[in-house]
Amino acid sequence: MERYDIIIVGTGPAGISAAITATIRKRKILLIGSRHLSTKVEKAHEILNYPGLPAVSGEDLKNALLAHLDSMNIPITEERVTLIYPMGDFFAVQSGNNNYEASSIILATGVVAGKPLPNEEEYLGRGVSYCATCDAALYRGKNVAIVGFSAKEEEEADFMTEYAARVVYFPQYAEETHTKEGVEVIREKVTSIVPQGFKAGGVETAEGNTYSFDGVFILRDSVSPKQLLPGLELDGNHVKVARDLSTNVSGCFACGDIAGLPYQYIKSAGEGNVAALSAVKYLASVQN
Amino acid sequence: MERYDIIIVGTGPAGISAAITATIRKRKILLIGSRHLSTKVEKAHEILNYPGLPAVSGEDLKNALLAHLDSMNIPITEERVTLIYPMGDFFAVQSGNNNYEASSIILATGVVAGKPLPNEEEYLGRGVSYCATCDAALYRGKNVAIVGFSAKEEEEADFMTEYAARVVYFPQYAEETHTKEGVEVIREKVTSIVPQGFKAGGVETAEGNTYSFDGVFILRDSVSPKQLLPGLELDGNHVKVARDLSTNVSGCFACGDIAGLPYQYIKSAGEGNVAALSAVKYLASVQN
Repeated sequence: MERYDIIIVGTGPAGISAAITATIRKRKILLIGSRHLSTKVEKAHEILNYPGLPAVSGEDLKNALLAHLDSMNIPITEERVTLIYPMGDFFAVQSGNNNYEASSIILATGVVAGKPLPNEEEYLGRGVSYCATCDAALYRGKNVAIVGFSAKEEEEADFMTEYAARVVYFPQYAEETHTKEGVEVIREKVTSIVPQGFKAGGVETAEGNTYSFDGVFILRDSVSPKQLLPGLELDGNHVKVARDLSTNVSGCFACGDIAGLPYQYIKSAGEGNVAALSAVKYLASVQN
Repeated sequence: MERYDIIIVGTGPAGISAAITATIRKRKILLIGSRHLSTKVEKAHEILNYPGLPAVSGEDLKNALLAHLDSMNIPITEERVTLIYPMGDFFAVQSGNNNYEASSIILATGVVAGKPLPNEEEYLGRGVSYCATCDAALYRGKNVAIVGFSAKEEEEADFMTEYAARVVYFPQYAEETHTKEGVEVIREKVTSIVPQGFKAGGVETAEGNTYSFDGVFILRDSVSPKQLLPGLELDGNHVKVARDLSTNVSGCFACGDIAGLPYQYIKSAGEGNVAALSAVKYLASVQN
Protein backbone atom coordinates (compact mmCIF):
# COMPACT_ATOMS: atom_id res chain seq x y z
CA MET A 1 0.00 0.00 0.00
CA GLU A 2 1.07 3.53 -0.83
CA ARG A 3 2.41 5.27 2.25
CA TYR A 4 1.89 8.97 2.90
CA ASP A 5 4.38 11.03 4.88
CA ILE A 6 1.59 12.78 6.77
CA ILE A 7 -2.15 12.27 6.95
CA ILE A 8 -3.87 15.42 8.17
CA VAL A 9 -7.32 14.86 9.66
CA GLY A 10 -9.54 17.94 9.60
CA THR A 11 -9.99 20.95 7.34
CA GLY A 12 -10.47 23.84 9.75
CA PRO A 13 -7.78 26.55 9.90
CA ALA A 14 -5.42 24.17 11.75
CA GLY A 15 -5.59 21.34 9.20
CA ILE A 16 -5.35 23.71 6.25
CA SER A 17 -2.37 25.53 7.71
CA ALA A 18 -0.65 22.18 8.35
CA ALA A 19 -1.34 21.07 4.77
CA ILE A 20 0.05 24.29 3.30
CA THR A 21 3.30 24.17 5.30
CA ALA A 22 3.82 20.42 4.83
CA THR A 23 3.36 20.89 1.08
CA ILE A 24 5.94 23.70 0.99
CA ARG A 25 8.22 21.28 2.81
CA LYS A 26 7.59 18.81 -0.06
CA ARG A 27 6.02 16.08 2.04
CA LYS A 28 3.54 13.65 0.55
CA ILE A 29 0.33 14.43 2.37
CA LEU A 30 -3.31 13.40 2.42
CA LEU A 31 -5.71 16.02 3.73
CA ILE A 32 -9.00 14.45 4.84
CA GLY A 33 -12.06 16.58 5.57
CA SER A 34 -14.69 18.58 3.77
CA ARG A 35 -14.66 21.33 1.16
CA HIS A 36 -17.06 23.08 3.53
CA LEU A 37 -13.89 23.18 5.67
CA SER A 38 -15.47 23.62 9.10
CA THR A 39 -19.01 24.45 10.18
CA LYS A 40 -17.61 26.78 12.79
CA VAL A 41 -15.74 28.86 10.22
CA GLU A 42 -18.44 28.69 7.57
CA LYS A 43 -21.19 29.92 9.86
CA ALA A 44 -19.28 32.61 11.75
CA HIS A 45 -20.96 36.01 11.35
CA GLU A 46 -17.80 38.01 11.45
CA ILE A 47 -14.29 37.30 12.70
CA LEU A 48 -12.54 40.38 14.05
CA ASN A 49 -9.19 38.96 15.09
CA TYR A 50 -7.65 37.05 12.18
CA PRO A 51 -4.77 39.47 11.59
CA GLY A 52 -4.59 40.65 7.99
CA LEU A 53 -8.26 39.95 7.26
CA PRO A 54 -10.11 42.59 9.30
CA ALA A 55 -13.79 41.93 10.04
CA VAL A 56 -13.92 38.95 7.69
CA SER A 57 -17.08 36.88 7.46
CA GLY A 58 -16.80 33.16 8.07
CA GLU A 59 -17.83 32.58 4.47
CA ASP A 60 -15.09 34.89 3.18
CA LEU A 61 -12.45 33.31 5.40
CA LYS A 62 -13.55 29.90 4.16
CA ASN A 63 -13.23 31.05 0.56
CA ALA A 64 -9.81 32.60 1.21
CA LEU A 65 -8.57 29.34 2.77
CA LEU A 66 -9.99 27.26 -0.10
CA ALA A 67 -8.41 29.60 -2.65
CA HIS A 68 -5.08 29.19 -0.84
CA LEU A 69 -5.33 25.39 -1.03
CA ASP A 70 -6.41 25.51 -4.66
CA SER A 71 -3.55 27.85 -5.61
CA MET A 72 -1.15 25.19 -4.33
CA ASN A 73 -3.08 22.29 -5.86
CA ILE A 74 -3.72 20.68 -2.49
CA PRO A 75 -6.81 18.47 -2.79
CA ILE A 76 -9.21 17.63 0.03
CA THR A 77 -10.22 13.98 0.33
CA GLU A 78 -13.86 14.25 1.37
CA GLU A 79 -14.21 11.41 3.83
CA ARG A 80 -14.70 10.86 7.53
CA VAL A 81 -11.88 9.17 9.46
CA THR A 82 -13.24 6.56 11.84
CA LEU A 83 -10.11 4.98 13.30
CA ILE A 84 -6.38 5.58 13.39
CA TYR A 85 -4.22 2.77 14.58
CA PRO A 86 -0.52 3.09 15.52
CA MET A 87 1.31 0.13 13.95
CA GLY A 88 4.81 0.83 15.25
CA ASP A 89 6.57 2.68 12.45
CA PHE A 90 3.41 3.79 10.67
CA PHE A 91 -0.29 4.48 11.21
CA ALA A 92 -3.21 2.62 9.64
CA VAL A 93 -6.11 4.95 8.91
CA GLN A 94 -9.70 3.88 8.29
CA SER A 95 -11.51 6.56 6.37
CA GLY A 96 -14.93 6.10 4.82
CA ASN A 97 -14.58 2.84 2.91
CA ASN A 98 -10.85 3.28 2.41
CA ASN A 99 -7.71 2.37 4.30
CA TYR A 100 -4.55 4.43 4.19
CA GLU A 101 -1.07 4.31 5.67
CA ALA A 102 1.03 7.22 6.84
CA SER A 103 4.33 7.67 8.65
CA SER A 104 2.85 10.45 10.76
CA ILE A 105 -0.52 11.92 11.69
CA ILE A 106 -1.73 15.43 12.37
CA LEU A 107 -5.05 15.57 14.25
CA ALA A 108 -6.95 18.78 13.54
CA THR A 109 -10.50 17.61 13.99
CA GLY A 110 -11.68 20.41 16.25
CA VAL A 111 -13.70 19.91 19.37
CA VAL A 112 -16.82 18.01 18.51
CA ALA A 113 -19.85 19.08 20.50
CA GLY A 114 -21.89 16.30 22.09
CA LYS A 115 -25.44 15.94 20.89
CA PRO A 116 -26.65 19.23 19.47
CA LEU A 117 -29.95 20.74 20.68
CA PRO A 118 -32.93 20.64 18.34
CA ASN A 119 -32.57 23.58 15.87
CA GLU A 120 -29.07 24.36 17.11
CA GLU A 121 -27.24 23.42 13.92
CA GLU A 122 -29.99 24.78 11.70
CA TYR A 123 -29.71 28.26 13.26
CA LEU A 124 -25.94 28.35 13.80
CA GLY A 125 -24.85 31.70 12.39
CA ARG A 126 -28.42 32.98 12.48
CA GLY A 127 -28.86 33.80 16.14
CA VAL A 128 -26.96 30.80 17.47
CA SER A 129 -23.22 31.17 18.10
CA TYR A 130 -20.44 29.07 19.66
CA CYS A 131 -17.99 31.90 20.37
CA ALA A 132 -18.60 34.89 22.64
CA THR A 133 -15.27 36.59 21.86
CA CYS A 134 -16.02 36.35 18.14
CA ASP A 135 -19.63 37.47 18.09
CA ALA A 136 -20.21 39.63 21.16
CA ALA A 137 -19.99 42.87 19.20
CA LEU A 138 -22.97 41.83 17.07
CA TYR A 139 -25.22 41.90 20.13
CA ARG A 140 -24.48 45.40 21.37
CA GLY A 141 -27.54 46.56 23.33
CA LYS A 142 -29.33 43.28 22.63
CA ASN A 143 -30.82 40.53 24.74
CA VAL A 144 -28.76 37.33 24.79
CA ALA A 145 -28.72 33.89 26.38
CA ILE A 146 -25.55 32.06 27.29
CA VAL A 147 -26.02 28.32 27.64
CA GLY A 148 -22.96 27.14 29.53
CA PHE A 149 -21.99 23.50 29.90
CA SER A 150 -19.15 24.11 32.33
CA ALA A 151 -18.22 26.71 34.94
CA LYS A 152 -15.47 28.21 32.82
CA GLU A 153 -18.16 29.63 30.51
CA GLU A 154 -19.19 32.03 33.29
CA GLU A 155 -16.26 34.19 32.23
CA GLU A 156 -17.87 34.44 28.80
CA ALA A 157 -21.17 35.54 30.34
CA ASP A 158 -19.32 38.20 32.34
CA PHE A 159 -17.60 39.39 29.19
CA MET A 160 -20.90 39.55 27.31
CA THR A 161 -22.29 42.12 29.77
CA GLU A 162 -19.83 44.60 28.28
CA TYR A 163 -21.85 44.46 25.06
CA ALA A 164 -25.37 43.15 25.51
CA ALA A 165 -28.14 45.04 27.33
CA ARG A 166 -29.35 41.87 28.99
CA VAL A 167 -27.38 38.67 29.58
CA VAL A 168 -29.12 35.56 30.85
CA TYR A 169 -26.90 32.65 31.86
CA PHE A 170 -28.26 29.10 31.79
CA PRO A 171 -25.82 26.84 33.68
CA GLN A 172 -26.18 23.27 32.42
CA TYR A 173 -24.29 21.87 35.40
CA ALA A 174 -24.84 21.47 39.09
CA GLU A 175 -22.12 23.66 40.65
CA GLU A 176 -22.91 27.05 42.12
CA THR A 177 -22.34 29.89 39.67
CA HIS A 178 -20.09 32.91 40.23
CA THR A 179 -21.04 35.30 37.49
CA LYS A 180 -20.65 39.00 38.05
CA GLU A 181 -23.37 41.60 38.59
CA GLY A 182 -25.45 42.18 35.49
CA VAL A 183 -25.64 38.49 34.58
CA GLU A 184 -29.09 37.03 35.27
CA VAL A 185 -28.89 33.32 36.10
CA ILE A 186 -31.75 30.97 35.22
CA ARG A 187 -31.13 27.47 36.46
CA GLU A 188 -33.17 25.49 33.94
CA LYS A 189 -32.25 22.78 31.46
CA VAL A 190 -32.30 24.12 27.91
CA THR A 191 -33.99 21.58 25.63
CA SER A 192 -34.23 23.35 22.29
CA ILE A 193 -33.70 26.51 20.28
CA VAL A 194 -36.92 28.29 19.36
CA PRO A 195 -37.00 29.62 15.80
CA GLN A 196 -38.50 33.00 14.99
CA GLY A 197 -38.90 33.17 11.25
CA PHE A 198 -35.46 33.09 9.61
CA LYS A 199 -33.54 33.39 12.89
CA ALA A 200 -33.26 31.80 16.31
CA GLY A 201 -35.60 33.64 18.65
CA GLY A 202 -35.08 32.04 22.05
CA VAL A 203 -34.83 28.86 24.06
CA GLU A 204 -37.19 26.32 25.54
CA THR A 205 -36.47 24.58 28.83
CA ALA A 206 -37.35 21.25 30.43
CA GLU A 207 -39.17 23.27 33.08
CA GLY A 208 -41.72 24.18 30.40
CA ASN A 209 -40.68 27.80 29.95
CA THR A 210 -39.94 29.64 26.71
CA TYR A 211 -37.63 32.67 26.71
CA SER A 212 -37.10 35.17 23.90
CA PHE A 213 -33.59 36.28 22.92
CA ASP A 214 -31.86 38.08 20.06
CA GLY A 215 -28.99 35.64 20.28
CA VAL A 216 -28.17 32.33 21.95
CA PHE A 217 -24.58 31.36 22.72
CA ILE A 218 -24.07 27.63 23.26
CA LEU A 219 -20.75 27.07 25.01
CA ARG A 220 -19.80 23.47 25.37
CA ASP A 221 -16.99 21.14 24.60
CA SER A 222 -16.82 17.43 24.50
CA VAL A 223 -14.59 15.35 22.37
CA SER A 224 -13.33 11.83 22.46
CA PRO A 225 -10.20 11.74 20.37
CA LYS A 226 -9.29 8.68 22.39
CA GLN A 227 -11.87 6.75 20.42
CA LEU A 228 -10.27 7.97 17.21
CA LEU A 229 -6.73 6.99 18.14
CA PRO A 230 -6.38 4.39 20.90
CA GLY A 231 -3.71 5.20 23.47
CA LEU A 232 -3.77 8.95 22.97
CA GLU A 233 -3.23 10.81 26.24
CA LEU A 234 -5.83 13.45 27.01
CA ASP A 235 -5.86 16.55 29.19
CA GLY A 236 -9.51 17.01 30.07
CA ASN A 237 -11.39 17.15 26.76
CA HIS A 238 -8.27 17.91 24.77
CA VAL A 239 -5.34 15.96 23.43
CA LYS A 240 -2.33 16.55 25.62
CA VAL A 241 0.41 18.24 23.60
CA ALA A 242 3.88 19.65 24.16
CA ARG A 243 4.93 23.09 22.90
CA ASP A 244 5.91 21.49 19.57
CA LEU A 245 2.40 19.94 19.42
CA SER A 246 3.65 16.37 19.70
CA THR A 247 1.38 13.95 21.60
CA ASN A 248 2.30 10.95 23.73
CA VAL A 249 2.03 8.79 20.58
CA SER A 250 5.28 9.03 18.63
CA GLY A 251 4.62 10.49 15.16
CA CYS A 252 1.19 11.84 16.10
CA PHE A 253 0.70 15.61 16.43
CA ALA A 254 -2.41 17.62 17.30
CA CYS A 255 -3.33 21.24 16.62
CA GLY A 256 -6.24 23.66 16.79
CA ASP A 257 -9.24 23.33 19.12
CA ILE A 258 -8.52 19.65 19.80
CA ALA A 259 -5.14 20.67 21.28
CA GLY A 260 -6.73 23.00 23.84
CA LEU A 261 -8.12 26.43 24.58
CA PRO A 262 -8.54 29.14 23.45
CA TYR A 263 -10.79 28.23 20.52
CA GLN A 264 -9.65 30.87 18.09
CA TYR A 265 -9.17 30.74 14.33
CA ILE A 266 -5.75 32.38 14.26
CA LYS A 267 -4.47 30.22 17.12
CA SER A 268 -5.50 27.15 15.12
CA ALA A 269 -3.83 28.40 11.95
CA GLY A 270 -0.62 29.07 13.88
CA GLU A 271 -0.65 25.65 15.49
CA GLY A 272 -1.23 23.90 12.16
CA ASN A 273 2.01 25.42 10.94
CA VAL A 274 3.92 24.31 14.05
CA ALA A 275 2.47 20.78 13.90
CA ALA A 276 3.51 20.44 10.25
CA LEU A 277 7.08 21.54 10.94
CA SER A 278 7.26 19.21 13.94
CA ALA A 279 6.00 16.33 11.77
CA VAL A 280 8.62 17.17 9.12
CA LYS A 281 11.30 17.08 11.80
CA TYR A 282 9.96 13.74 13.07
CA LEU A 283 9.97 12.30 9.54
CA ALA A 284 13.59 13.38 9.05
CA SER A 285 14.53 11.57 12.26
CA VAL A 286 12.83 8.26 11.36
CA GLN A 287 13.29 8.16 7.58
CA ASN A 288 17.05 8.71 7.49
CA MET B 1 0.57 57.73 36.65
CA GLU B 2 -1.95 56.28 34.21
CA ARG B 3 -1.85 52.50 34.33
CA TYR B 4 -2.39 50.35 31.26
CA ASP B 5 -3.90 46.88 31.48
CA ILE B 6 -1.38 45.50 29.01
CA ILE B 7 1.73 46.94 27.39
CA ILE B 8 2.58 45.02 24.23
CA VAL B 9 6.20 45.33 23.12
CA GLY B 10 6.77 44.65 19.44
CA THR B 11 4.80 45.13 16.24
CA GLY B 12 5.45 41.98 14.26
CA PRO B 13 2.56 39.56 13.63
CA ALA B 14 2.64 38.43 17.30
CA GLY B 15 2.35 41.90 18.81
CA ILE B 16 -0.29 43.00 16.33
CA SER B 17 -2.38 39.89 16.89
CA ALA B 18 -2.15 40.41 20.66
CA ALA B 19 -3.20 44.06 20.29
CA ILE B 20 -6.22 43.15 18.14
CA THR B 21 -7.52 40.49 20.51
CA ALA B 22 -6.84 42.52 23.69
CA THR B 23 -8.74 45.44 22.13
CA ILE B 24 -11.72 43.23 21.30
CA ARG B 25 -11.59 42.15 24.94
CA LYS B 26 -11.81 45.87 25.84
CA ARG B 27 -8.52 46.08 27.67
CA LYS B 28 -6.60 49.34 27.86
CA ILE B 29 -3.45 48.64 25.90
CA LEU B 30 -0.32 50.39 24.74
CA LEU B 31 1.31 48.91 21.64
CA ILE B 32 4.95 49.96 21.34
CA GLY B 33 6.91 49.40 18.14
CA SER B 34 7.21 50.79 14.65
CA ARG B 35 4.77 51.50 11.84
CA HIS B 36 7.27 49.61 9.71
CA LEU B 37 6.02 46.71 11.91
CA SER B 38 8.95 44.35 11.53
CA THR B 39 11.92 44.33 9.18
CA LYS B 40 11.48 40.62 8.74
CA VAL B 41 7.90 40.99 7.49
CA GLU B 42 8.55 44.14 5.48
CA LYS B 43 11.45 42.67 3.55
CA ALA B 44 10.09 39.16 2.94
CA HIS B 45 9.96 38.40 -0.79
CA GLU B 46 6.91 36.22 -0.64
CA ILE B 47 5.21 34.35 2.17
CA LEU B 48 3.55 31.15 1.01
CA ASN B 49 2.11 29.83 4.25
CA TYR B 50 0.01 32.53 5.91
CA PRO B 51 -3.36 30.80 5.43
CA GLY B 52 -5.90 33.02 3.70
CA LEU B 53 -3.29 35.25 2.06
CA PRO B 54 -1.70 32.96 -0.56
CA ALA B 55 1.72 34.01 -1.89
CA VAL B 56 1.58 37.39 -0.19
CA SER B 57 4.57 39.70 -0.35
CA GLY B 58 6.01 40.95 2.94
CA GLU B 59 5.01 44.47 1.94
CA ASP B 60 1.41 43.40 1.29
CA LEU B 61 1.20 41.46 4.57
CA LYS B 62 2.55 44.51 6.36
CA ASN B 63 -0.08 46.70 4.74
CA ALA B 64 -2.86 44.22 5.55
CA LEU B 65 -1.79 44.14 9.22
CA LEU B 66 -1.56 47.94 9.38
CA ALA B 67 -5.00 48.28 7.77
CA HIS B 68 -6.37 45.86 10.38
CA LEU B 69 -4.93 47.96 13.23
CA ASP B 70 -6.17 51.17 11.64
CA SER B 71 -9.69 49.77 11.12
CA MET B 72 -9.84 49.20 14.88
CA ASN B 73 -8.19 52.54 15.74
CA ILE B 74 -5.28 50.86 17.50
CA PRO B 75 -2.33 53.28 17.48
CA ILE B 76 1.34 52.30 17.53
CA THR B 77 3.56 54.20 19.94
CA GLU B 78 6.77 54.54 17.96
CA GLU B 79 9.41 54.12 20.65
CA ARG B 80 12.03 51.63 21.73
CA VAL B 81 11.55 49.91 25.11
CA THR B 82 14.82 49.79 27.03
CA LEU B 83 13.82 48.28 30.37
CA ILE B 84 10.84 46.59 31.97
CA TYR B 85 10.86 46.27 35.70
CA PRO B 86 8.48 44.04 37.72
CA MET B 87 7.26 46.10 40.70
CA GLY B 88 5.09 43.49 42.39
CA ASP B 89 1.57 44.17 41.19
CA PHE B 90 2.57 46.16 38.12
CA PHE B 91 5.41 46.71 35.68
CA ALA B 92 7.40 49.91 35.16
CA VAL B 93 8.39 50.37 31.53
CA GLN B 94 11.13 52.66 30.25
CA SER B 95 10.47 53.51 26.63
CA GLY B 96 12.36 56.19 24.73
CA ASN B 97 12.22 59.19 27.04
CA ASN B 98 8.95 58.06 28.63
CA ASN B 99 7.95 55.89 31.55
CA TYR B 100 4.78 53.82 31.63
CA GLU B 101 3.01 51.48 34.01
CA ALA B 102 1.04 48.38 33.15
CA SER B 103 -0.60 45.54 35.05
CA SER B 104 0.71 43.02 32.53
CA ILE B 105 3.26 42.75 29.74
CA ILE B 106 3.30 40.92 26.43
CA LEU B 107 6.78 40.53 24.96
CA ALA B 108 6.69 40.20 21.18
CA THR B 109 10.04 41.68 20.26
CA GLY B 110 11.18 38.92 17.94
CA VAL B 111 14.61 37.42 17.98
CA VAL B 112 17.13 40.18 17.54
CA ALA B 113 20.15 39.17 15.51
CA GLY B 114 23.57 39.99 16.96
CA LYS B 115 25.76 42.32 14.96
CA PRO B 116 24.75 42.24 11.31
CA LEU B 117 27.37 41.67 8.60
CA PRO B 118 28.37 44.62 6.45
CA ASN B 119 25.71 45.01 3.68
CA GLU B 120 23.45 42.41 5.32
CA GLU B 121 20.64 44.78 6.26
CA GLU B 122 21.03 46.82 3.09
CA TYR B 123 20.43 43.75 0.89
CA LEU B 124 17.83 41.99 3.04
CA GLY B 125 15.06 41.07 0.63
CA ARG B 126 17.39 41.60 -2.32
CA GLY B 127 19.42 38.42 -2.30
CA VAL B 128 19.76 38.20 1.48
CA SER B 129 17.17 36.21 3.44
CA TYR B 130 16.67 35.05 7.04
CA CYS B 131 14.20 32.23 6.31
CA ALA B 132 14.83 29.14 4.19
CA THR B 133 11.29 27.78 4.48
CA CYS B 134 9.90 31.12 3.30
CA ASP B 135 12.23 31.85 0.41
CA ALA B 136 13.59 28.52 -0.82
CA ALA B 137 11.21 28.40 -3.78
CA LEU B 138 12.66 31.64 -5.13
CA TYR B 139 16.02 29.95 -5.66
CA ARG B 140 14.92 26.97 -7.71
CA GLY B 141 17.89 25.90 -9.82
CA LYS B 142 20.04 28.70 -8.41
CA ASN B 143 23.30 28.92 -6.52
CA VAL B 144 22.87 29.76 -2.83
CA ALA B 145 24.94 30.19 0.33
CA ILE B 146 23.69 29.29 3.78
CA VAL B 147 25.55 31.04 6.57
CA GLY B 148 24.67 29.03 9.68
CA PHE B 149 25.44 30.24 13.18
CA SER B 150 24.43 27.02 14.90
CA ALA B 151 24.25 23.33 14.03
CA LYS B 152 20.45 23.33 13.83
CA GLU B 153 20.72 25.36 10.62
CA GLU B 154 22.18 22.32 8.85
CA GLU B 155 18.62 21.06 8.48
CA GLU B 156 17.85 24.23 6.51
CA ALA B 157 20.81 23.61 4.22
CA ASP B 158 19.59 20.03 3.66
CA PHE B 159 16.12 21.36 2.85
CA MET B 160 17.53 23.91 0.42
CA THR B 161 19.05 21.14 -1.75
CA GLU B 162 15.49 20.25 -2.75
CA TYR B 163 15.28 23.59 -4.57
CA ALA B 164 18.66 25.10 -5.37
CA ALA B 165 21.09 23.68 -7.94
CA ARG B 166 24.06 24.36 -5.65
CA VAL B 167 24.00 24.79 -1.89
CA VAL B 168 27.11 25.94 -0.05
CA TYR B 169 27.01 25.82 3.73
CA PHE B 170 29.26 28.12 5.76
CA PRO B 171 29.25 26.88 9.38
CA GLN B 172 30.07 29.80 11.69
CA TYR B 173 30.78 27.48 14.61
CA ALA B 174 33.38 24.94 15.59
CA GLU B 175 31.43 21.67 15.75
CA GLU B 176 31.63 19.08 13.00
CA THR B 177 28.84 19.42 10.42
CA HIS B 178 26.39 16.67 9.44
CA THR B 179 24.76 17.98 6.32
CA LYS B 180 23.49 15.55 3.74
CA GLU B 181 24.90 14.79 0.32
CA GLY B 182 24.54 17.69 -2.07
CA VAL B 183 25.52 20.30 0.50
CA GLU B 184 29.00 21.68 -0.07
CA VAL B 185 30.62 22.79 3.18
CA ILE B 186 33.13 25.67 3.22
CA ARG B 187 34.59 26.21 6.65
CA GLU B 188 35.41 29.90 6.44
CA LYS B 189 34.34 32.91 8.47
CA VAL B 190 31.96 35.07 6.48
CA THR B 191 32.86 38.73 6.97
CA SER B 192 30.58 40.59 4.57
CA ILE B 193 27.98 40.44 1.86
CA VAL B 194 29.28 41.39 -1.56
CA PRO B 195 26.91 43.58 -3.57
CA GLN B 196 26.40 43.06 -7.28
CA GLY B 197 24.59 46.10 -8.59
CA PHE B 198 21.14 46.24 -7.04
CA LYS B 199 21.37 42.81 -5.37
CA ALA B 200 23.57 40.79 -3.09
CA GLY B 201 26.01 38.83 -5.24
CA GLY B 202 28.03 36.74 -2.82
CA VAL B 203 30.08 36.64 0.35
CA GLU B 204 33.58 37.54 1.41
CA THR B 205 35.47 35.55 4.04
CA ALA B 206 38.16 36.24 6.60
CA GLU B 207 40.29 33.76 4.66
CA GLY B 208 40.44 36.33 1.87
CA ASN B 209 38.13 34.53 -0.55
CA THR B 210 35.13 35.92 -2.43
CA TYR B 211 32.32 33.61 -3.56
CA SER B 212 29.49 34.41 -5.96
CA PHE B 213 25.88 33.43 -5.14
CA ASP B 214 22.38 34.21 -6.34
CA GLY B 215 21.17 34.26 -2.76
CA VAL B 216 22.63 34.31 0.74
CA PHE B 217 20.68 32.92 3.71
CA ILE B 218 21.90 34.17 7.06
CA LEU B 219 20.55 31.92 9.80
CA ARG B 220 21.31 33.06 13.28
CA ASP B 221 19.58 33.84 16.47
CA SER B 222 20.71 35.73 19.47
CA VAL B 223 18.58 37.68 21.83
CA SER B 224 18.89 38.83 25.37
CA PRO B 225 15.37 39.38 26.67
CA LYS B 226 16.92 38.94 30.11
CA GLN B 227 18.45 42.37 29.75
CA LEU B 228 15.04 43.78 28.85
CA LEU B 229 13.23 42.25 31.82
CA PRO B 230 15.42 41.21 34.76
CA GLY B 231 14.54 37.82 36.22
CA LEU B 232 12.99 36.40 33.08
CA GLU B 233 13.75 32.70 32.69
CA LEU B 234 15.19 31.70 29.33
CA ASP B 235 15.30 28.46 27.38
CA GLY B 236 18.40 28.82 25.22
CA ASN B 237 17.95 32.04 23.26
CA HIS B 238 14.22 32.16 23.89
CA VAL B 239 11.95 33.15 26.73
CA LYS B 240 10.68 30.04 28.47
CA VAL B 241 6.90 29.85 28.15
CA ALA B 242 4.10 27.48 29.08
CA ARG B 243 1.39 26.42 26.60
CA ASP B 244 -0.61 29.52 27.61
CA LEU B 245 2.48 31.63 26.87
CA SER B 246 2.97 32.72 30.46
CA THR B 247 6.58 33.20 31.59
CA ASN B 248 8.13 32.66 35.03
CA VAL B 249 7.34 36.31 35.83
CA SER B 250 3.73 36.61 36.95
CA GLY B 251 1.80 38.88 34.56
CA CYS B 252 4.40 38.68 31.82
CA PHE B 253 3.64 36.76 28.64
CA ALA B 254 5.76 36.16 25.53
CA CYS B 255 4.80 35.25 21.96
CA GLY B 256 6.23 34.96 18.48
CA ASP B 257 9.89 34.34 17.67
CA ILE B 258 11.03 35.35 21.15
CA ALA B 259 8.95 32.47 22.56
CA GLY B 260 10.73 29.85 20.48
CA LEU B 261 10.99 28.07 17.16
CA PRO B 262 9.71 27.78 14.49
CA TYR B 263 10.11 31.35 13.26
CA GLN B 264 6.95 31.58 11.18
CA TYR B 265 4.56 34.47 10.61
CA ILE B 266 1.37 32.51 11.19
CA LYS B 267 2.74 30.84 14.32
CA SER B 268 3.51 34.30 15.69
CA ALA B 269 0.05 35.63 14.84
CA GLY B 270 -1.54 32.63 16.56
CA GLU B 271 0.59 33.04 19.66
CA GLY B 272 -0.20 36.75 19.92
CA ASN B 273 -3.87 35.82 20.19
CA VAL B 274 -3.19 33.23 22.90
CA ALA B 275 -0.91 35.59 24.87
CA ALA B 276 -3.61 38.29 24.81
CA LEU B 277 -6.31 35.94 26.08
CA SER B 278 -3.96 34.64 28.78
CA ALA B 279 -3.20 38.22 29.85
CA VAL B 280 -6.94 38.99 29.98
CA LYS B 281 -7.44 35.96 32.19
CA TYR B 282 -4.55 37.05 34.41
CA LEU B 283 -5.99 40.58 34.71
CA ALA B 284 -9.38 39.15 35.73
CA SER B 285 -7.68 37.14 38.46
CA VAL B 286 -5.73 40.06 39.95
CA GLN B 287 -8.12 42.97 39.37
CA ASN B 288 -11.20 41.43 40.98
